[in-house]
Amino acid sequence: MEETEPPGGALRRLPWLVATSQLLGLLCVALGAVWTAYFRGGFAWEGDLLFNVHPLCMVIGMVFLYGEAILIFRIFRNEVKKSVKIIHGIVHVGALIAAIIGLVAVFDFHQTKGFPHLYSLHSWCGLGVVILYFVQWLLGFGFFLFPRAAPESRSAYRSIHTFFGLALFVLSVATATMGLTEKLIYAIGDRYGEYPAEGILANCLGLALIGFGAAVAYVVTRDEWRYRRHDGEEAPLSLHFQRFSDERAD
Amino acid sequence: MEETEPPGGALRRLPWLVATSQLLGLLCVALGAVWTAYFRGGFAWEGDLLFNVHPLCMVIGMVFLYGEAILIFRIFRNEVKKSVKIIHGIVHVGALIAAIIGLVAVFDFHQTKGFPHLYSLHSWCGLGVVILYFVQWLLGFGFFLFPRAAPESRSAYRSIHTFFGLALFVLSVATATMGLTEKLIYAIGDRYGEYPAEGILANCLGLALIGFGAAVAYVVTRDEWRYRRHDGEEAPLSLHFQRFSDERAD
Repeated sequence: MEETEPPGGALRRLPWLVATSQLLGLLCVALGAVWTAYFRGGFAWEGDLLFNVHPLCMVIGMVFLYGEAILIFRIFRNEVKKSVKIIHGIVHVGALIAAIIGLVAVFDFHQTKGFPHLYSLHSWCGLGVVILYFVQWLLGFGFFLFPRAAPESRSAYRSIHTFFGLALFVLSVATATMGLTEKLIYAIGDRYGEYPAEGILANCLGLALIGFGAAVAYVVTRDEWRYRRHDGEEAPLSLHFQRFSDERAD
Repeated sequence: MEETEPPGGALRRLPWLVATSQLLGLLCVALGAVWTAYFRGGFAWEGDLLFNVHPLCMVIGMVFLYGEAILIFRIFRNEVKKSVKIIHGIVHVGALIAAIIGLVAVFDFHQTKGFPHLYSLHSWCGLGVVILYFVQWLLGFGFFLFPRAAPESRSAYRSIHTFFGLALFVLSVATATMGLTEKLIYAIGDRYGEYPAEGILANCLGLALIGFGAAVAYVVTRDEWRYRRHDGEEAPLSLHFQRFSDERAD
């Protein structure tokens, strides 16, 4: 069933909002990289610098790539559904790999330093989010890609998948802001109150994470930009990408 | 226009979900009270205990009452719209008063202790949320209650009001979890890693806040429980409340 297109005005706003979300997403990764590489001393797979792998991987995986995977159904809203689903799944695999590297880094760091594990609210939320995210990935894979459930089950699960997908993404952003708060107080402590460059930059990273989360949530919850269902699912992705580019050029 | 009722199964789930949200909301207030009154030493309008007014008022105002105000359109979904709007507005006034007391407490506390203001990510987000929340309250009042905009403007603004209302509520919950993290590290520091009762209780408060936020978001974003529009808006609230109670008793 080809759904009716929303009025042109609503469609013209989509590329601008997607562009804004992309700028905010890239800003998150850039500020995360500057904070860990410049202010926190860079990366290593041992010693003090091992910790820095954790926030950067989490920002890249559980915020940036996770958000991109959600947005894909709006960016390629005229594409063949199967192709879009496969890209959605692949981007989520990337997010999961980054998250696992980030988790291994922080557990390893705590282990070698003799720090206790899993005592803070950030750590409880973080572990919970990654586990639920993995369960959501498995269910999504099973229902929508392989083995692929019956149409009624797919339809019933779709609304749960989209709600919990977005809810976990938002919780992931919130968990990142808690982790940022925790690390800043442990690392710079009382100096935080003197408005140092590191504190300001890390706060801006927090605002960028929240802004990216809000932009993704806004784009995916508007009715007018929902994915269009197609009868014929054969048109190549590249052709449709051309159409999306044309729309952007409007 | 009287909208078609969703199937009975979907309606029967609503009271259970509302009950769950209420239990989680009350748990937030209870855990917030135990944490500040028992573990942090209670309340006073001067000295060290002044600080404790801040988290408790923020949990009551910007989380619990804010969430209740949003849920009201689902709890009283069969009521006369004007009555529900007025209750929605009144509960939001309560939330705003609690938030202002909470803000005055923390600014006063910082002032008398000589602590710097507004340096942390929590403080930036918190101040931003309260200001935007107040703007949203004013716009809602102007568009929907007094002076009341033209139907087309109301309808155009309604989707913005509901999105930003929920988004600011979620940001408010996230800001609370950041504040909790900040205060715990400043107050119990290294002991946090020894799994003390205070740390566990405060982490549970954080989980309750997130749970309440998720329950509210779930109930208000499901299509099947949207507020029903009425042609005749005269039926008394009490009559409809009776109807809601009957549904719950099913």
